[in-house]
Amino acid sequence: MPNSTTEDSVAVPLLPSLRRATNSTSQVAIVGANVCPIESLDYEIAENDFFKQDWRGRSKVEIFQYVFMKWLLCFCIGIIVSLIGFANNLAVENLAGVKFVVTSNMMIAGRFAMGFVVFSVTNLILTLFASVITAFVAPAAAGSGIPEVKAYLNGVDAPEIFSLRTLIIKIIGNISAVSASLLIGKAGPMVHTGACVASILGQGGSKRYRLTWRWLRFFKNDRDRRDLVTCGAAAGIAASFRAPVGGVLFALEEMSSWWRSALLWRIFFSTAVVAIVLRALIDVCLSGKCGLFGKGGLIMFDVYSENASYHLGDVLPVLLLGVVGGILGSLYNFLLDKVLRAYNYIYEKGVTWKILLACAISIFTSCLLFGLPFLASCQPCPVDALEECPTIGRSGNFKKYQCPPGHYNDLASLIFNTNDDAIKNLFSKNTDFEFHYFSVLVFFVTCFFLSIFSYGIVAPAGLFVPVIVTGASYGRFVGMLLGSNSNLNHGLFAVLGAASFLGGTMRMTVSTCVILLELTNNLLLLPMMMVVLLISKTVADGFNANIYNLIMKLKGFPYLYSHAEPYMRQLLVGDVVTGPLQVFNGIEKVETIVHVLKTTNHNGFPVVDGPPLAAAPVLHGLILRAHILTLLKKRVFMPSPVACDSNTLSQFKAEEFAKKGSGRSDKIEDVELSEEELNMYLDLHPFSNASPYTVVETMSLAKALILFREVGIRHLLVIPKTSNRPPVVGILTRHDFMPEHILGLHPSVSRSKWKRLRIRLPFFS
Amino acid sequence: MPNSTTEDSVAVPLLPSLRRATNSTSQVAIVGANVCPIESLDYEIAENDFFKQDWRGRSKVEIFQYVFMKWLLCFCIGIIVSLIGFANNLAVENLAGVKFVVTSNMMIAGRFAMGFVVFSVTNLILTLFASVITAFVAPAAAGSGIPEVKAYLNGVDAPEIFSLRTLIIKIIGNISAVSASLLIGKAGPMVHTGACVASILGQGGSKRYRLTWRWLRFFKNDRDRRDLVTCGAAAGIAASFRAPVGGVLFALEEMSSWWRSALLWRIFFSTAVVAIVLRALIDVCLSGKCGLFGKGGLIMFDVYSENASYHLGDVLPVLLLGVVGGILGSLYNFLLDKVLRAYNYIYEKGVTWKILLACAISIFTSCLLFGLPFLASCQPCPVDALEECPTIGRSGNFKKYQCPPGHYNDLASLIFNTNDDAIKNLFSKNTDFEFHYFSVLVFFVTCFFLSIFSYGIVAPAGLFVPVIVTGASYGRFVGMLLGSNSNLNHGLFAVLGAASFLGGTMRMTVSTCVILLELTNNLLLLPMMMVVLLISKTVADGFNANIYNLIMKLKGFPYLYSHAEPYMRQLLVGDVVTGPLQVFNGIEKVETIVHVLKTTNHNGFPVVDGPPLAAAPVLHGLILRAHILTLLKKRVFMPSPVACDSNTLSQFKAEEFAKKGSGRSDKIEDVELSEEELNMYLDLHPFSNASPYTVVETMSLAKALILFREVGIRHLLVIPKTSNRPPVVGILTRHDFMPEHILGLHPSVSRSKWKRLRIRLPFFS
Repeated sequence: MPNSTTEDSVAVPLLPSLRRATNSTSQVAIVGANVCPIESLDYEIAENDFFKQDWRGRSKVEIFQYVFMKWLLCFCIGIIVSLIGFANNLAVENLAGVKFVVTSNMMIAGRFAMGFVVFSVTNLILTLFASVITAFVAPAAAGSGIPEVKAYLNGVDAPEIFSLRTLIIKIIGNISAVSASLLIGKAGPMVHTGACVASILGQGGSKRYRLTWRWLRFFKNDRDRRDLVTCGAAAGIAASFRAPVGGVLFALEEMSSWWRSALLWRIFFSTAVVAIVLRALIDVCLSGKCGLFGKGGLIMFDVYSENASYHLGDVLPVLLLGVVGGILGSLYNFLLDKVLRAYNYIYEKGVTWKILLACAISIFTSCLLFGLPFLASCQPCPVDALEECPTIGRSGNFKKYQCPPGHYNDLASLIFNTNDDAIKNLFSKNTDFEFHYFSVLVFFVTCFFLSIFSYGIVAPAGLFVPVIVTGASYGRFVGMLLGSNSNLNHGLFAVLGAASFLGGTMRMTVSTCVILLELTNNLLLLPMMMVVLLISKTVADGFNANIYNLIMKLKGFPYLYSHAEPYMRQLLVGDVVTGPLQVFNGIEKVETIVHVLKTTNHNGFPVVDGPPLAAAPVLHGLILRAHILTLLKKRVFMPSPVACDSNTLSQFKAEEFAKKGSGRSDKIEDVELSEEELNMYLDLHPFSNASPYTVVETMSLAKALILFREVGIRHLLVIPKTSNRPPVVGILTRHDFMPEHILGLHPSVSRSKWKRLRIRLPFFS
Repeated sequence: MPNSTTEDSVAVPLLPSLRRATNSTSQVAIVGANVCPIESLDYEIAENDFFKQDWRGRSKVEIFQYVFMKWLLCFCIGIIVSLIGFANNLAVENLAGVKFVVTSNMMIAGRFAMGFVVFSVTNLILTLFASVITAFVAPAAAGSGIPEVKAYLNGVDAPEIFSLRTLIIKIIGNISAVSASLLIGKAGPMVHTGACVASILGQGGSKRYRLTWRWLRFFKNDRDRRDLVTCGAAAGIAASFRAPVGGVLFALEEMSSWWRSALLWRIFFSTAVVAIVLRALIDVCLSGKCGLFGKGGLIMFDVYSENASYHLGDVLPVLLLGVVGGILGSLYNFLLDKVLRAYNYIYEKGVTWKILLACAISIFTSCLLFGLPFLASCQPCPVDALEECPTIGRSGNFKKYQCPPGHYNDLASLIFNTNDDAIKNLFSKNTDFEFHYFSVLVFFVTCFFLSIFSYGIVAPAGLFVPVIVTGASYGRFVGMLLGSNSNLNHGLFAVLGAASFLGGTMRMTVSTCVILLELTNNLLLLPMMMVVLLISKTVADGFNANIYNLIMKLKGFPYLYSHAEPYMRQLLVGDVVTGPLQVFNGIEKVETIVHVLKTTNHNGFPVVDGPPLAAAPVLHGLILRAHILTLLKKRVFMPSPVACDSNTLSQFKAEEFAKKGSGRSDKIEDVELSEEELNMYLDLHPFSNASPYTVVETMSLAKALILFREVGIRHLLVIPKTSNRPPVVGILTRHDFMPEHILGLHPSVSRSKWKRLRIRLPFFS
């Protein structure tokens, strides 16, 4: 009888007592602002009889349709993301613009107190709105979203990150928070928005809001969705910076964990669509139909200067800029990590504290932005100024502020302005004498600390723009210090400073370089930018990790890195497998299945054929919990333990086994079965993946990790070395490769020299 | 006794009769111009006791040294490749330049016949020199080398491709062949040159010529060398086009099969060094110290035009350009493939034929270049010409040729010129009326066919420049046909035409785009260039594969693609494994080892522990032929079958097991052992890789391929499904995944619909 050994085979502890403990490290993570349970994604193709049948049954038209739909979705992602990006900029420029114009007008009229009240109250209301909707409606929308998307692309499925609700709150919240003059960016949220759009399109709409489209239901698996989300993330960067190639490279260098050449091509298509649509929309706005937009929005800094020539003598200052930028960047990462940890501690006390903190930051920011320019002395307008001085209104290099006519306040031009305009002012050429040392230094220090404190608030907030603005002010300050010792103008120094700071915090090289080139439209800067980036990244890597990896670690995402830690070479796979292992027979009693599903939370179960079907126990494959639940729901059981025939198979449709939308899945508690049904049997053979990846238990953990990571597996079966044991002795999942888990089981390895070496040589790879 | 079952275990045929046939598909390939035996590379880390011991024994200083050396080598690669690239251009510009100046002067003096004789004889001598040294000294240097490097980076080790001899002949031969006015390029050979430099540095010099440096011997494994060769290839493109970011992307998109984030960063460093060194050298040349160089060399076309604005109306012509470019590109690939096949047929007849063919192509080219301009009518010089008209000398848009004073021959300006200058003329802006329809059309047709016939000659020859020049003339022609129906100037059309043709032949998207942007220094072209590239690639992919893949297939390289063919899903691993399998005991008799090594040409042998050491046969690991040979050479044998102790181990040094230079390896025939030694024993345990990757024999071939390819394995062990069989039942290598092999074993799958589908939907992925 196949079920004679059921009770034994189900719960037999195959491994010694030490490893009987289940792996309990990091099954939850902070998603946005809330703690949520997380699961892994299934990238593996389940090659079972049923799906082979389905695939063979597909006509050529269906296959063509599938390919066509992939391209169409990339096109749609490009269109939608560019429209969102444009709308985002349009809204911010107009909201913040009106605010600055009103305040400036009051100040020109001498009503400073009134100006401050209007400015700070507007900011407070906008911040409050952003944080309230984020905290109460979609906590997953808080922060930049890049860590969440990066973890998703690595195979970590967090609930709600790609829901329609998150998408809407992310857009509205970010517009509101950026308009509130907080020192936060738009690029990170745009990446999340792009990924969200891609995911929603890929799963055919939002089921919860009944916004589903049947014709979009082609991508019911995690592999296709991963490709689309990568596309969306690239489109997000392309829309933020009008940098299509930069977007592709960003997705490649920073976001994606797996990469295919075909994907490169499709992502390139999406970002090309973004670039073209944005260009068309901006052309429309140039004719002045977009309110205050078009004068400063959608940052694109044209610092092209014909005489961007530089000589060997300029190399030393550039090297210095890179080294200091790297140190400052890693300091930034360190402080941001500490501040976020402190914030998490505050946030545990409740949602009121989250909102209070956001309001406190807003008020503090308003005070600084309004108050600091009064410290700067007024500068007389240059006689050969290219534009009106002082500029009355919003944009421009010369803010009047409290100064007498014919004078301008240089610090106000930087600080009492939108971030985009501040960057533009810093990057602009031929303005070497417009800013005073003191103003640039104050601006740099303000940006540095304010952005660290602002990022963690409960609202959609990015890091790119704050880092660029901080880096640009730092670069400009270095340029001013060098003065006539360098041939480069201060605008170029600002660009290089931004590069060095980006390299020091985000640690991207090629993508940062291309994004900055596309922003500044000056290819001649390339070699110097490359040097600065390489140096700042090298220096900063000596201290700590890249900012997104730090945040991911802080949030508790089980991110799988592609390299193995040195101590993993000392351990075997068998050393980290935790039990008990749950195994099903090929033809299993329904009662057993339900019992196992209720008592464990495993998501994959090995299917082993026992004596009546095979002479000795033989591994048949691996079945997923989701697929078992589909089988149970369909209630196609057999009264006796026999293999199911093609009639039974034909009752199933491939769609029923399709992966549900992100974060949503069936539960065993929803399946109600009668006593009679529980005593029936289920043939798992046709539905289990007959080609699971396996490793022998004596394989080194480091090599198992490489297999796990490179191929992109969710469940890796461990098979015994000797033949007198059961055909499967364990399952490795993502959590078994986490350092916390391994070091918990084997505390001795953490004291070995490998751990220390790794820390002292972080650039070792 | 461990050797009691030796004779059995060594040659037992484990698989049915069908699979007893050894895999004989494609063990040789055409490397450069000669047929050579090829091997696979070992990317897997052999985790055995001995290496673990070695790794633990390394001090921190040694590890730091290793990391430092990696960076230092990247720096050296950048420096050397940029110097070679510069020298290459300097030599070509001066050689070809003097030739054109002398010929032009004769023609101005009316001595046309004499001019033709000088021109054609110079070309013939240069071609003869290039083909003779290539054919007799280093046949591996023939062609562009990109297919060889691409195959190497996929794990195919061809002898001689990275030898010092190949490097020198590649550089000299290419200078000579390009100076001979053949329609061939410099970029492909530069990629090969860069890869060669990287490989020679990585293996610590050339052993054959006693040019070795001890301090460079850090990278005695294929993984590190692969990284360096990728760096070298990227530096090659960077040096050809002065396109550092383009070089990185080219290495990523076209060359590399495996990619790591750390590699991206290091490659970026190399190309940054190239960009900086080239810039410095060109600055030196601008002051006129480099002869004829500096007026045209090292193509960098500055087509920056302030008014590069375009509107929706320009989209249609651009789409058309892309579609036709794609069709022409795939036609180009088709014809080139046919011509190369025909040439291979001729080349089989002997080396004389190779040289004769090169000479014939040279004479034919000379006749065309000299003769065709006479067909063009003379144009009067434009009154508002920006430069001297007609240009007397070499470069410039206005060649006098046979025309009367005050007139110029527009076809001669294109065709009777170096390729770099022709491209510059075609790309230049504000020259819409300088070229006549007829001239551009004649030039396009000539380039199209001449480059197809020229590529296959036995000399270092690239494809990039011919494709760019053909595409530019095509684009310019389309621009002229459209005339006033488009707002774009003809120079822009030429750039877009080059993009469409590159997309149609090479099928790269992002890298082509960035290379062209860096060449033309005009970021505003980006969106249109992206559209053109995507369309031409899509169209061309409907017809055939990318040109380098076609050439690799023609040459017979067992290139592993990252996707599985649909018919592989129908097959199991057990269906393609060929026998007989050779297995060693953990402690094996020396005689048996020598016998097996002499009678087979396998490169990896499973090590299985038999009864006295283990109750049942147990898989211990996998040992490489190279490591066994090292053990045999060292002659540390034991008189009885016992495990070796730490004393024995301490006699070995890690360097002895280091991978030999490319294409070089020890041979069993070189090992002479006495009768006494043959009867002794060898303990293979500490030297075999104890963590080999394994698949169960019932795994689908498609999934095994994904594992094989993603992880980068040379030998994949196949283990049995049931426990009553030997612990290993087969080994899969690269050749077992080749379509020829699989379809040879299972002809039925090729007739199934999967095969057909694949052909009709080539863009399916």
